[in-house]
Amino acid sequence: MDTVFTYEHLSHFSVQVFKAIGCSDANATLATRVLLSADLRGIDSHGIARLSGYVRLQEAGRVNSKPNIRIVHETPSTAVVDGDAGLGLVVAPKAMQIAIEKANAVGSGWVSVRNSNHFGIAGFHAMMALEHDMIGWAMTNASALVAPTFAQERMLGTNPVCLAVPAGEEPAFVADFATTTAANGKLEILQRKKANAPPGWVQDRDGNPSVDANILKEGGALLPLGGDREHGSHKGYALSSMVDILSGVLSGASYGPWVPPFPAYVPMPDYQPGDGLGHFLGAMRIDGFRPAAEFKHHMDAWIRRFRQTKPMDAAQPVLIPGDPEREMEAERMKNGIPLVQPVVNDLAQLATKMGLSL
Amino acid sequence: MDTVFTYEHLSHFSVQVFKAIGCSDANATLATRVLLSADLRGIDSHGIARLSGYVRLQEAGRVNSKPNIRIVHETPSTAVVDGDAGLGLVVAPKAMQIAIEKANAVGSGWVSVRNSNHFGIAGFHAMMALEHDMIGWAMTNASALVAPTFAQERMLGTNPVCLAVPAGEEPAFVADFATTTAANGKLEILQRKKANAPPGWVQDRDGNPSVDANILKEGGALLPLGGDREHGSHKGYALSSMVDILSGVLSGASYGPWVPPFPAYVPMPDYQPGDGLGHFLGAMRIDGFRPAAEFKHHMDAWIRRFRQTKPMDAAQPVLIPGDPEREMEAERMKNGIPLVQPVVNDLAQLATKMGLSL
Repeated sequence: MDTVFTYEHLSHFSVQVFKAIGCSDANATLATRVLLSADLRGIDSHGIARLSGYVRLQEAGRVNSKPNIRIVHETPSTAVVDGDAGLGLVVAPKAMQIAIEKANAVGSGWVSVRNSNHFGIAGFHAMMALEHDMIGWAMTNASALVAPTFAQERMLGTNPVCLAVPAGEEPAFVADFATTTAANGKLEILQRKKANAPPGWVQDRDGNPSVDANILKEGGALLPLGGDREHGSHKGYALSSMVDILSGVLSGASYGPWVPPFPAYVPMPDYQPGDGLGHFLGAMRIDGFRPAAEFKHHMDAWIRRFRQTKPMDAAQPVLIPGDPEREMEAERMKNGIPLVQPVVNDLAQLATKMGLSL
Repeated sequence: MDTVFTYEHLSHFSVQVFKAIGCSDANATLATRVLLSADLRGIDSHGIARLSGYVRLQEAGRVNSKPNIRIVHETPSTAVVDGDAGLGLVVAPKAMQIAIEKANAVGSGWVSVRNSNHFGIAGFHAMMALEHDMIGWAMTNASALVAPTFAQERMLGTNPVCLAVPAGEEPAFVADFATTTAANGKLEILQRKKANAPPGWVQDRDGNPSVDANILKEGGALLPLGGDREHGSHKGYALSSMVDILSGVLSGASYGPWVPPFPAYVPMPDYQPGDGLGHFLGAMRIDGFRPAAEFKHHMDAWIRRFRQTKPMDAAQPVLIPGDPEREMEAERMKNGIPLVQPVVNDLAQLATKMGLSL
């Protein structure tokens, strides 16, 4: 049985928690906005369910709640930002702001970030560009859960990509997806239901196909988008590698199997080729290419034509990337955010530990 | 039985053909280099097998062999280029050169191209960045062969993406892939063998799963990377849409189901929201982020670690994106390019028609 909380209620609680671990008021509010945008958009695995995980990272000395986020190197359109081991929830939006400023100045801005932590959903950061009539990009590497094509071993994170594109009268196009067949959050849902995973999502520790939704706990791996070689998993592997290189190698963060894990109880890899985990953020001014009004007119036309695509089944129309998340956000802002009992229990424990009330 | 030609032989023939349709010496040579890079890299569907197709487009008045390729609008890091209906084989490398110049000046350069035609393989254009110690991006839209998730109708091209990343002692990382489960060229191979397609590659005209490798001729469609909803086809659909928007909507080219077809015998769509087809090309200077030597040291480390990934099967090591194409290029430069009989016949006919010898 789910418990439903209002956005305001969870937001207030989350701000208190981030302040309790040492964040400034402004950073606690920013981190909360980013974190809860996941709950609003229905990506429950990346929202408030992770709050106690961030706290444990801070307790373990792996998150710096008072980071000095700074530009290490820059050109007019590019920069590397050092997040000073801050919360990715704070580092990433600040780095995206730098990308937006650069785009304002010279047409586009590209920021590779090192020494950061998990940044919530990619969509939040990419969507920051929209109100500036810019196209936003966001990606991040993450600790290794995914086996490349032909591999037995986990080498890559679920490394998501988001592209957010403004439209005119239509809502924005927001493609935000993990570069695996299925995100880890989808497996967690199946674990709670004690259900099997569909074939093509995971493999066991020896690299054999598996349908066990708990197989990652036994050394198994998620599969890159495509699933197997015959269905193009080498493309999902390439895409995930692109994210890792742009986020990790380009910035000076760790990469591949050495990206620091999110759970504080998982030991750090014994070698670190760089600092923390990495993100890659970009902003392109629409009118660096064509007049914004003209572009938006055509984006509306694109979206409308795709909505009218002849569906296989009249009951299931073709969707535009971002549709389900936007509808979920409207629904949850109105009716509240349902949390499953294990998450409620976890937050209640956190409240007790910190002397707060949930 | 294949016939083997040397690179030089095919190159000489191709230059003569492009000159015969009105290209300047320089453009005939450039178009040939781009076209044959596909044959060398083993992407036979995009190489000399298409030469007569380009000629027919020119004969149909849909390719301008003397284009005035020009920048329509620009900022320091962005531009839109109008290809003046030129061969994409000529327009795209010139646009990529502009991206590289902008990256030299301000750290990165991004060029969206309209009024172009098919540009061969994305890899050629992205790889132009490598010798400048830059990361190269290339994508293009293409005429509709792909049904979005839940759709019966073809709405998107196979819309490839390439990212080329320089390394130090190791060869470059080059991810170059169509955003479908399988590229159309793979279907053509099955057609010649009279073999079925694996499940998850295509659907029939009503949207039902199919294994018929000829189903596209009967109104069927290719499937986005992922294959079906359960295996993440909405991600392949999103990725292909991203390519279409950046290449088509951003530049002022046509997009979605309105992208002009490559075969000259296929009528143009009755509506054109823009000019020709579109590309999106980018270059980022490595040292806009971190010193190039430091980056290359870490790219070498990335590549070496991924090569050492524990494989499922010792006989099939884990590959780095770009490995198979690079090995093929070395092999074919040395031993020649094998062409299947239908392609040889087609080229022989073309030679006769143009008064040339193959």
